Amino acid sequence: MIIAFDADDTLWVNEPYFREAEAALLEMLSRYYPGEDLLDRLYQQEIKNLNIFGYGAKAFTLSMIESAIELSHGKVSGSEIQRIIDLGRGIMSQPVKLLKGVEETIKQMSSEHQLMLITKGDLFDQESKIARSGLADYFRIIEVVSEKDEATYNQLLIKHNIQPDQFWMVGNSLRSDVLPIVELGGQAVHIPCDVGWVHEHVDVDESTRQTYHELTCIDQLPELISKTA
Amino acid sequence: MIIAFDADDTLWVNEPYFREAEAALLEMLSRYYPGEDLLDRLYQQEIKNLNIFGYGAKAFTLSMIESAIELSHGKVSGSEIQRIIDLGRGIMSQPVKLLKGVEETIKQMSSEHQLMLITKGDLFDQESKIARSGLADYFRIIEVVSEKDEATYNQLLIKHNIQPDQFWMVGNSLRSDVLPIVELGGQAVHIPCDVGWVHEHVDVDESTRQTYHELTCIDQLPELISKTA
Repeated sequence: MIIAFDADDTLWVNEPYFREAEAALLEMLSRYYPGEDLLDRLYQQEIKNLNIFGYGAKAFTLSMIESAIELSHGKVSGSEIQRIIDLGRGIMSQPVKLLKGVEETIKQMSSEHQLMLITKGDLFDQESKIARSGLADYFRIIEVVSEKDEATYNQLLIKHNIQPDQFWMVGNSLRSDVLPIVELGGQAVHIPCDVGWVHEHVDVDESTRQTYHELTCIDQLPELISKTA
Repeated sequence: MIIAFDADDTLWVNEPYFREAEAALLEMLSRYYPGEDLLDRLYQQEIKNLNIFGYGAKAFTLSMIESAIELSHGKVSGSEIQRIIDLGRGIMSQPVKLLKGVEETIKQMSSEHQLMLITKGDLFDQESKIARSGLADYFRIIEVVSEKDEATYNQLLIKHNIQPDQFWMVGNSLRSDVLPIVELGGQAVHIPCDVGWVHEHVDVDESTRQTYHELTCIDQLPELISKTA
């Protein structure tokens, strides 16, 4: 049995740092742009940039800068743009704060199962967070990927010679951590996070909800697995 | 025998795109900053950002923006900063142009040896270039890493169960592709590139030069390996 974990907002705090930076940007731009769709405009910019910049804090910072220039009609000042870069740098330099129950659960499970970490985003930023988390040694395999879809997971299973019915994936995103695994025939565990990114949000109906497990805290995972596996 | 290749400026053109963007930035900033150390100031900014932003085109773009703000004392305009982002986007959207002899050599060697690709930089950008290069299927192993030093190579050799004396590494950077491999006891092949980044430059003395191979074009590689191995 291989138990794989997402990292950002599953093992440690991530999304709230992005939302804080976003809130600071909105406040900065409010004097240039009175529209109520400011947040939506920023999101549109991020999505537009996704196929060239990818995911992660550097891509997000570049999108914040482009939004600031566009929505201020070029009036945003040099020092304000410097402040946006510092917001991005702030996201990348946050101490890694583990979520409730993570350290104990990962430590306990690593003695019984082979653990894997599968995370998406900036390679450099992710490796830095993994190193600072203090959890790296508990994982037999660590993979940083640029997209988390069915094709990526399928490649990882082949690469590591893992049978789907021997594979569990645990994460906070239905879109990236849960639904692709269900499709592949593995066991998926959803642990929702209070703060989400709209891009990761999907609505699921009741019949889909029956295809995966849902927990409120990672510390319920050992019991779920011992009951199910 | 495992033959590993660097990618940027070993298999395809990369550094010239960065230098072109840099030249455009210097021209833009010349009216704000008369100093002749403009290029050096930009480099200092990149090095300062390395431990938080890492390598790659997004990190470079953020450093260009910070340099522009600092050296213009905040006077650089919104549309000029937009132009800097577009320079960065230009680097990331260049078509992948294979260097001379690469396609034939890689194709030929893949039928005789197990090939590996080891490249450094933005994960998303590197994966995109690997996919667009048309070469991905020739490599048994592809690794995108955030740093190319002795520790990283050592981890890769352990991970893939490769003996150093069975390992060849081919690349354009003495610092990143050649010297760490020599230290580990593998065979290193240096194929210099006309355009280099000063960060990758190292001076080597004659005795060090004896520890690795030097070629002018990748198409000389099969003969070198069959003579040496």
